[in-house]
Amino acid sequence: MGCGVVGSSVLKVLKNHQKSIELQTGVSFDVTVISVRDTAKPRSQVVPEQLLISDPMQVAQHSKVDVVLELMGGTDVAHTAVETALRAGKHVVTANKALLAAQGHALFALAESQGVDLYYEASVAGSIPIIRILREALTSDYIEQVQGIVNGTSNYILSRMDTDDLEFADALREAQQAGYAEADPSLDVGGGDAAHKLTLIASLAFAKRFNSNAFAIEGIENVSRADIVFARRFGYVIKPLAVACRSSENPQELFDLRVHPALVPADSMMASIHGALNAVHVKSALMGNGLFSGPGAGGDPTAMSVVSDLIDLGRNIVAGSAGRVAAGGIPQNDISDAQTKDIQHHCSRFYLRFRVRDKPGVLAQIAGALGDHDVSIEQMIQDSSLSQTPEPVYVVVLTHKAREGALHQALKRIADIKDVVEPPCALRIQE
Amino acid sequence: MGCGVVGSSVLKVLKNHQKSIELQTGVSFDVTVISVRDTAKPRSQVVPEQLLISDPMQVAQHSKVDVVLELMGGTDVAHTAVETALRAGKHVVTANKALLAAQGHALFALAESQGVDLYYEASVAGSIPIIRILREALTSDYIEQVQGIVNGTSNYILSRMDTDDLEFADALREAQQAGYAEADPSLDVGGGDAAHKLTLIASLAFAKRFNSNAFAIEGIENVSRADIVFARRFGYVIKPLAVACRSSENPQELFDLRVHPALVPADSMMASIHGALNAVHVKSALMGNGLFSGPGAGGDPTAMSVVSDLIDLGRNIVAGSAGRVAAGGIPQNDISDAQTKDIQHHCSRFYLRFRVRDKPGVLAQIAGALGDHDVSIEQMIQDSSLSQTPEPVYVVVLTHKAREGALHQALKRIADIKDVVEPPCALRIQE
Repeated sequence: MGCGVVGSSVLKVLKNHQKSIELQTGVSFDVTVISVRDTAKPRSQVVPEQLLISDPMQVAQHSKVDVVLELMGGTDVAHTAVETALRAGKHVVTANKALLAAQGHALFALAESQGVDLYYEASVAGSIPIIRILREALTSDYIEQVQGIVNGTSNYILSRMDTDDLEFADALREAQQAGYAEADPSLDVGGGDAAHKLTLIASLAFAKRFNSNAFAIEGIENVSRADIVFARRFGYVIKPLAVACRSSENPQELFDLRVHPALVPADSMMASIHGALNAVHVKSALMGNGLFSGPGAGGDPTAMSVVSDLIDLGRNIVAGSAGRVAAGGIPQNDISDAQTKDIQHHCSRFYLRFRVRDKPGVLAQIAGALGDHDVSIEQMIQDSSLSQTPEPVYVVVLTHKAREGALHQALKRIADIKDVVEPPCALRIQE
Repeated sequence: MGCGVVGSSVLKVLKNHQKSIELQTGVSFDVTVISVRDTAKPRSQVVPEQLLISDPMQVAQHSKVDVVLELMGGTDVAHTAVETALRAGKHVVTANKALLAAQGHALFALAESQGVDLYYEASVAGSIPIIRILREALTSDYIEQVQGIVNGTSNYILSRMDTDDLEFADALREAQQAGYAEADPSLDVGGGDAAHKLTLIASLAFAKRFNSNAFAIEGIENVSRADIVFARRFGYVIKPLAVACRSSENPQELFDLRVHPALVPADSMMASIHGALNAVHVKSALMGNGLFSGPGAGGDPTAMSVVSDLIDLGRNIVAGSAGRVAAGGIPQNDISDAQTKDIQHHCSRFYLRFRVRDKPGVLAQIAGALGDHDVSIEQMIQDSSLSQTPEPVYVVVLTHKAREGALHQALKRIADIKDVVEPPCALRIQE
């Protein structure tokens, strides 16, 4: 179901790697039928035109189909189609994080009750086998934190702003021209796509049900070139992070999830994840720290994960072991809703950037507002070198650990200071 | 079989994570019997003393045992014991790379014919699920190259030499005191351990049979502090690499395998793998570049991988799907011997370090010898700052791409120059 960039790549892989797949698994795959929105549209040679139909429901219920690949995207038709396929006893592979973030647990439960498999490696971090790692390799471990760069578009834009001295709008335009960003980039740069992926990651890591609307999501739109320059000066790089960890208060039930750009140490491995690359860092009781990186998007890397899932299902069909690994990591009967921590209670160090008129007393007012709300200053610099005009100047502050709620109150007061000419920008520092 | 650091850690994990493992897999594990060399030796509380026996063969054939964990190490008793267990129809999990490098394919074939599983995630790179990634996640891909830091001891020593200005002998002593190196460190620092692991990695990546004695293995013993300083000056870090790739001449049949310290770019991800960490980089047709890093040794990280394998076997027992994934990646009937390229034909850039008396004509003689053997010089520096005495001085050369055989002939001639006072040191530059 669906034959765009990823679908065509899947067909290519099944054709070119057929022998190697048969050799390793004893299974061969035949493409039975392919649904596309427009059957008349010209397509690459690898797409067998005689198999094209326009109705995904016919794929979902086709009598000769064992495994359905859902590569359409979207959450309406795709939802009905995947549900129909599972009800018809088909195994399903999907790359659709939006669908799974919204309907995953219901679909996992349906797959279980139908005795079929629902696999989705390609839905998070493209070619990185993070679903497999969380669901199988780390089954023996106790995961404490997962954080990652899971949106390649945002990482590409921030990397370009850094290496090529671009402002956000210019870097976005170039990302669109290079095919790294959609015409409507809001789901990527706004953090929504990363939030979908984080929901799936957290569910597997903590064996709980998470809601992608129940935690803080900030995009990268407000990061400016000046922030990237100042961050570098302090020894940091700005990266688009998705973070999920157990709370210290109640590690079994209460979790801290958030998606936002953050300052990470320039010599950390996360800082070395450049361009459209993705990476996921896992901290756990036994392993300690593991980092897994690779391309997070693109036809071939995504198709690689789709076909790996397909091979897994083929192995299960041959061995009669469907359901060997629960789609959601644990049986859905045993899963309960997670509580997520209100970000107002979150504590971290912060990078703050203000633009102010260079007048006596402004710095004192800023420092005073922060102090009044228990936000303690670690470093503070005033700089006019990045401005076109001598005024307004930048004032940049690194804070000690502060509570988010208190910081926001301080920032509100600072925004009201007469000589502060722009809304303040605050970014978290992720150690 | 075996209850040292890893075995004790496995017992701890099985106890502490029992509920979570049952929840995820529906399987619970009972420890039936444990063989140890000395049953009278005092052990940690987690070891149930009443289960200790001294004969591993009794474990291998025990009527109540479904899965045997081989955590003894060594290649004699362990070989007989694993073979006995497989013949008795037991599934086996082992962390023993030396055994598998020597006997892996015979044991894989035996497991297949017996319809049982032989898993060995912990044998390569400790907690990094690289066996699973190669054997399952990348089944759909075409792997071109695998390179990694797979010996934590060597990486720890080179890292300490770099960060703490130590010579090899001092760093080794500290590694031994810190528990990162064995009393007899030769298998680690000599490259033999990495070669065992590379043999396993290459077999899975290329679906061929490799012999760990059939390729070039160099240890890190000859790397000096001066080399680390000079490498930094050129923008490189020295890392203990294991490399396996397809040859350009005959990518299906001829492979380039080697274990040696190498210069890697200081801003590469491989350079950021510090201390005892391991990392494996995979280059493949579809994924492109993936890097997987984590602790490569230690009780808990290794036990994590052992228990993950155990869980996989438990899942197979429940689903009746033993043999679902062939132990060796592909059925052993279909596997053939790989040819490995003679390293004399290998081409790369080189770092060369000489110590010479500071006399007119010496540099010219070195340059002449290199030129006569078609080794072209990219950069050359003479430096006395790292010596205690004004003489002899260091001469360091970076070459353009050169054939190894030709380089060795040139080095032989240079070693004979009267004013060259030490055997030359040559290290490969891995781009």
